[in-house]
This record gives sequence, C-alpha cells and structure tokens, in this order.
Amino acid sequence: MLFMAQMQVNLPPDMPAAAADKLKADEKALAQRLQREGKWVHLWRVAGRYANVSIFDVADNDELHTLLSSLPLFPYMDIQVTALARHPSAI
Amino acid sequence: MLFMAQMQVNLPPDMPAAAADKLKADEKALAQRLQREGKWVHLWRVAGRYANVSIFDVADNDELHTLLSSLPLFPYMDIQVTALARHPSAI
Amino acid sequence: MLFMAQMQVNLPPDMPAAAADKLKADEKALAQRLQREGKWVHLWRVAGRYANVSIFDVADNDELHTLLSSLPLFPYMDIQVTALARHPSAI
Amino acid sequence: MLFMAQMQVNLPPDMPAAAADKLKADEKALAQRLQREGKWVHLWRVAGRYANVSIFDVADNDELHTLLSSLPLFPYMDIQVTALARHPSAI
Amino acid sequence: MLFMAQMQVNLPPDMPAAAADKLKADEKALAQRLQREGKWVHLWRVAGRYANVSIFDVADNDELHTLLSSLPLFPYMDIQVTALARHPSAI
Amino acid sequence: MLFMAQMQVNLPPDMPAAAADKLKADEKALAQRLQREGKWVHLWRVAGRYANVSIFDVADNDELHTLLSSLPLFPYMDIQVTALARHPSAI
Amino acid sequence: MLFMAQMQVNLPPDMPAAAADKLKADEKALAQRLQREGKWVHLWRVAGRYANVSIFDVADNDELHTLLSSLPLFPYMDIQVTALARHPSAI
Amino acid sequence: MLFMAQMQVNLPPDMPAAAADKLKADEKALAQRLQREGKWVHLWRVAGRYANVSIFDVADNDELHTLLSSLPLFPYMDIQVTALARHPSAI
Amino acid sequence: MLFMAQMQVNLPPDMPAAAADKLKADEKALAQRLQREGKWVHLWRVAGRYANVSIFDVADNDELHTLLSSLPLFPYMDIQVTALARHPSAI
Amino acid sequence: MLFMAQMQVNLPPDMPAAAADKLKADEKALAQRLQREGKWVHLWRVAGRYANVSIFDVADNDELHTLLSSLPLFPYMDIQVTALARHPSAI
Repeated sequence: MLFMAQMQVNLPPDMPAAAADKLKADEKALAQRLQREGKWVHLWRVAGRYANVSIFDVADNDELHTLLSSLPLFPYMDIQVTALARHPSAI
Repeated sequence: MLFMAQMQVNLPPDMPAAAADKLKADEKALAQRLQREGKWVHLWRVAGRYANVSIFDVADNDELHTLLSSLPLFPYMDIQVTALARHPSAI
Repeated sequence: MLFMAQMQVNLPPDMPAAAADKLKADEKALAQRLQREGKWVHLWRVAGRYANVSIFDVADNDELHTLLSSLPLFPYMDIQVTALARHPSAI
Repeated sequence: MLFMAQMQVNLPPDMPAAAADKLKADEKALAQRLQREGKWVHLWRVAGRYANVSIFDVADNDELHTLLSSLPLFPYMDIQVTALARHPSAI
Repeated sequence: MLFMAQMQVNLPPDMPAAAADKLKADEKALAQRLQREGKWVHLWRVAGRYANVSIFDVADNDELHTLLSSLPLFPYMDIQVTALARHPSAI
Repeated sequence: MLFMAQMQVNLPPDMPAAAADKLKADEKALAQRLQREGKWVHLWRVAGRYANVSIFDVADNDELHTLLSSLPLFPYMDIQVTALARHPSAI
Repeated sequence: MLFMAQMQVNLPPDMPAAAADKLKADEKALAQRLQREGKWVHLWRVAGRYANVSIFDVADNDELHTLLSSLPLFPYMDIQVTALARHPSAI
Repeated sequence: MLFMAQMQVNLPPDMPAAAADKLKADEKALAQRLQREGKWVHLWRVAGRYANVSIFDVADNDELHTLLSSLPLFPYMDIQVTALARHPSAI
Repeated sequence: MLFMAQMQVNLPPDMPAAAADKLKADEKALAQRLQREGKWVHLWRVAGRYANVSIFDVADNDELHTLLSSLPLFPYMDIQVTALARHPSAI
Repeated sequence: MLFMAQMQVNLPPDMPAAAADKLKADEKALAQRLQREGKWVHLWRVAGRYANVSIFDVADNDELHTLLSSLPLFPYMDIQVTALARHPSAI
C-alpha cells in the first residue's frame, strides 16, 4: 500500500556540526536499509529545500507511522502524509 | 485500518429541490449500508456546517477511495483524508 | 456531548530526555484514566506526525477545557476543537 | 453553554431582489425570535462585511446545529463555530 | 463602541513559574478591574486553547489600543481586532 | 477616528458593460462626495489589481459600516477593515 | 529530469455526462500513451479526492509545460509543480 | 524601476473559443508591443499553469498599473505585484 | 510615488529592557526625521498589535528599500510592501 | 533552463556581527561568481524585506539544487522554486 510523505527538515542552524553529522549519517543508513527492504520505494530531494518527497510501500498505517517515527530526524521534521490509491489510467 | 475523512458538502443553493433531495436520500442510504457493513464506523456532523467528520475502517487505500468516490455527493464534496495509526496511549 | 480535538505536540527537540519522558509518562497515565472513565472515547495517532485525533464525551464546554488544559503536554500542544453533533444519517 | 458563531453571508449578487428580500426578512424574524427566547444572546455586525459575530446559549452541540442549520440564510453562509468556556478571570 | 479581540497567549513553556504566575496574576487583576469599569464587557475562554474571545466597549480606537497594549501579557499575545457595528436584526 | 479598508472588487467579467458602467459611475460619485465631506480621507489604487486601500475618518464603527455598505459596489467587494490608532512616533 | 505534479481536477458537477466522458476518455488515452513513452513515470490517485500525484521524466521545463498543457483536462485542473533532484541517500 | 508581476489567468473553461482566441491574440499583440518598447522586460511561463512571471521596467507605480490594467486578459487575471530594488550582490 | 508598508514588530519578550528601549528610541528618532522630510507621510498604529500601517512617498523602489532597511527595528520586523497608484475616483 | 527562486533570509537578530558579516561576505562572493558564470542570471532585492527574487539558468534540477544548497546562507533561508518555461508571447 502506497503513501506519499513530504518531509521538511528543520535542523537548528546552530546545532553542533558533530551532532548534526551523526543524525544525518544515521538517517542515511536507515533510509538506505528501508530502500533495500522495499519499504521506502522512492526518495527525491525537493530542489532548493532541505526537504524530500518520498513514496512508501507498507502493510498499513501502523507500519507507516512506526517507520516514519523511527527516523533519526523525525523530531526535526514536519511530515505530511498522503494516502495513494491505484489510478484508473495507470498502466 | 482506520482513516479520518473530513467532508465539506458544497451543494449549489440553486439546485432544484427534487435533485438535491434525491442526492441526499441516495447518500443516506449508502452511508447507512456502509455503517451496517462496518466500513463507515463513525459519522458525526460538524456543528454549524454542512460537513462531517467520519472514520472509516477499510482494508487499504484503494478500498477507501473506491468507497468515497462512490458516494452520490462525491462530486460536490471537498474531502480531506488522514491516515490514523494506533496510539501508544490508547487502551 | 462529543468534541473532536486535533492535537499537535511540539516538544522542543533539545528538552532533556528525562523531562520529556516524565511528561509523556504523566500524559499517558492521565490519557488512560480519562479513557477508562469514558471521557476520552477515541484516541488515534496521525500517521507520520507527533499528533493525534481525539474524541471526547463531556458534559459541556467547561468540562472539555478543564480536561484538555490539565494535560501535562498542554503547554506544548496546539489544539483545535470541533463541536460534533448527531448526523442524520448515523445509525 | 456558550458558542461563538462567525457567519459570513455569500448571497449571489444576481439573486432577484424579491427572493433576497424574502430570505432576509425570514432570517430577521427567526433571529429576533431566537434572541427573545434567550438562545441567540449576542448579534453584532462585522464592520465592512456582510457578516456577523454571534453568541449562542444552547443546551448542547445538537441544539446549536439544529438552530444554525434552520436559518433561512444557512445555505448561503460560511459558519465557523468556537466552543467557549468560562474564563478564570471573568467576573 | 464595541470591538471583538481574539487573543492567543504564547507564553514560553520554559518561563520560570514565578515569573509566569506574576504575569498571570497581574493580568487577572487588570482584566477584572477593566470588567468592573465596563470596558471589558465579555471575556470567554476558547475551549482547548490558552486563548480568549473578548468584547470591549471603548470610546474609540485609541482607547482600545491603550487598553490592550497595557495588558501584562501583551508582549506574549497575538491579538486580532474586529470592529463591531449594530446589527439590523439585533433586538 | 481612522480605519483602513482594503477593498478588492470582484465584478463578474461577463456583467453587461452598461450595468458595470452604471455601478462604477455611481460608486465614483459617492466616493467623491464622501471625500469632499472628509469621511473618505485617502483612496489609493493597488497597482496591478482592481482593488484599493482607503482611509476613513468616521465617528464610530456604525458610521463606518453604514458608509461601506452603502457603496454601489459593496455586493461585489471583499473588504477587510483595520482599526487605526495614533502611533507614538507620529508627528 | 524528474518533476512532481500534483493535479486537482475541478470538473463542474453540471457538465453534461457525454462531454465529461469524452474529456476523461481523451485524458486517459493520452495519459497512457505518455506512460508508455516513459514521460509520465508514476500516476497515483489521491485517496478521497479527484486528484493525482504524478512524476514526470522530461528533458526540460519546456517539455514539461508542453505536456501538461496538452492534457484534455488542463483547463479544469489546478496543477502544482515541484522540481525534484537526486537525493544523497537514494540508492 | 523594476517590478515583478505574477499573473494567474482564470479564463472560464466554457468561454466560446472565438472569444477566448480573440482575447489571447489581443493580449499577445500588446504583450509583444510592450516588450519591444522595453516596458515588459521578461515574460516567462510558469510550468504546469496558465500563469506567468513577468518583470516590468516602468517610470513609476502609475505607469505599472496603467499598463497592467490595459491588458485584455486583466479582468480574468489575479495579479500580485512585488516592488524590486537593486541587490547589493548584483553585478 | 506612494507605497504602503505594513510592519509587524516581533521583538523577543526577553530582550533586556535597556536594549529594547534604545532600539525604540532610535527608531522613533528616525521615524520622526523621515516624517519631517516628507518621506514617511503617514504612520498609524494597528489597534491591538505591535504593528503599524505606513505610507511612504519616495523617488523609487530603491529609495524605499534603503529607507526601510535602515530602520533600527528592521531585523525584528516583518514588512509587506504594496505599490500604490492614483485612483481614478480620488479627488 | 530557467528557474525562479524566491529566497527569504531569516538570520537570527542575535547572531554575532562577525559571524553574520562573514556569512554575508561569503554569500556575496559566491553570488557574484555564479552571476559571472552565467548561472545566476538575475538577482533582485524585494523592497522592504531581507529577501530576493532570483533567476537561475542551469542544466537541470540537480545543478539547481547543488547550487542553491551550496550558498552560505542556505541554512537560514526559506527558498521557493518555480520552474519557468518559454512563454508563447515572449519575443
């Protein structure tokens, strides 16, 4: 089941570089694992912003929330979820 | 799997009464059938508005969209869907 | 009498973990007591957000405000209240 | 129990004058009856707009919705309801 | 002359309790004095929020601003003012 | 007592030219009379829009609403009113 | 080069069914041809709305606009375009 | 003196083709004349929308408004004007 | 050439009083000088807010920006500029 | 390929002057280099705001994001990107 998540990251500019780097590295590791597992099926950067557009393929709403709230950057993100359905014109 | 749908109905005030009554009667019949089937688990009126807050229990996003887009008032409604997950404090 | 409360929690990411844990534990305890008492009749997590959709069954507006403003997380939440009425199509 | 209702009237400018006058006269008659009954406790015009700020004193959400949706201008109005509670500094 | 003021209070959650209590006590004392003087004619709590809806009866815009900007909580509030006029259906 | 009124005119593009011209001529005549009477103290066009920024000097909110709602274009305008007070730095 | 287009379709509910059916059939035919050509790489329905989330892979902005403005439903759609870039964590 | 104008065109989809074509041809002719005269210095299409971003070089606000309000599509456009100044980093 | 500037001041409530007083005194001195020079032709307080509505008469956009960005409170203000043109009904 | 970027700079007013000056000097140096290279083709100040309207000419979305995210002020800016296409009336 597919969901779009639009994530805006709001890291405070004065966060110490080491802490920010650690967060980003952990986020990247988890994002790549979830991609390899087929849960996070698309991940695009929004040009000009520290933000992304993502597509998730999960079993249900609970799995989606568990996954998103486990992201290291979750406390710093504003996330908007859109439930996606099959489009009758999709091939 | 639960979703909240917030539906605002925008029937044109100059729609002939017979057409509006037919639409509303059909909507009511379907709404009540879906409630009896356990798909539309809560249906509340927003005080002061021709609008409702509804909770649906469906198998997936596709079933949710099929159900909502089959409503007779669908062409006249603005619907916002929110995916709901289990809350850790819910009993 | 039913109300929907949509609560967005905005805990500062740099709050010490112990303080945050204490707040959350107290919030959970109160939320569960209010659920058992039949005041907080539904509590759902909004997928992807530190937010919830809740339904309260209270005697009046004063009881609703007393209840919401007593929540340990109240100073950190943005809450939108919607008064709900019986829907003519509800069964 | 008190509620604020903010009502914006959107009558189409090309509605025939007779129809508009009838609606407004009916609205006025009902508004005045509800004021005399103590249900519609305050009614103010928003300066510069075809809109009002109103305070209602009703038994519950259902009575509020029944009352508002019975207004002749209801199909032409956008209404926002705010539940009001006792303020600790009110005398 | 009547005005509605919608006040949202945004006290920082980490303000020391003594400072917050002092501010609130001063605010309450002034609010009650202004009510007794007939300037602050209604004061209601918005259910679920640290906010109020107030009606002021003042001589003119200058008196309204002087009054509002003298409130101890003024630096922490977002205030929206609406000028109210007599409604032709008011009794 | 001064108020700013921001008026956006929304004449339907398909209104017959004669009707639109009549409305605009009547509006202009009244606007000029009110300027000569000292009630409508400033009237500026918003560059690029069929809109204006106006300053009114009236006795009170009731006079302001009576004046604005008497404008021939009133049914086609969206008007936002801002109550203005003396600024401590104004000379 | 990838772009997200979020399309909300606003067909007037009173459009004759034959005209609407023709538009939708033409739209579907073109959408499927563009998908087969690899230009319209993803097409999802937004659950609960007559809307979609689409991903386009085009040579440049001009091709994107040419493609979107050639859609039969273009005059009835509100489209928001987001330029997408490669995400450093994408695999 | 430079201004940005962001213009969204809202032609009714049911406008007869001949009328729409005439409007667009007149608009194009004037747009091209103003470009040749050096008044309309940039004109870009917003990808995916019937909208443009334009830069005007005019003597003052009055010339800008005269120019914009003379456009054949002016009654169908929503225009937002932004006054531009020299940027200290511009070369 | 006239511009409206709507300025909202957002001084942090915890700024030391001496620093805030200095800023305000400097702002006042400059505002009064600009008024005497005929650049800042109107300055009104928005009732209920730490905000103002101002009218400037300047040679061009560059002078307007130079003037506004030189205000001592500029780093703490959110300013919206509206270009004003002569209104055909102004006398 | 052209893009408009609307950049709002939100430097904290309490940033030490030396740090802010360094950031601004670095930003200026890079902005001027990118202008000389023909990537940043227009750069205008928004009158009254610490903001700019910029036009970029880049090979693709990836180059645009790489460029924007390399700006020294990027962590302090809110940037909105608009993809621009050739306008049929442009000469």
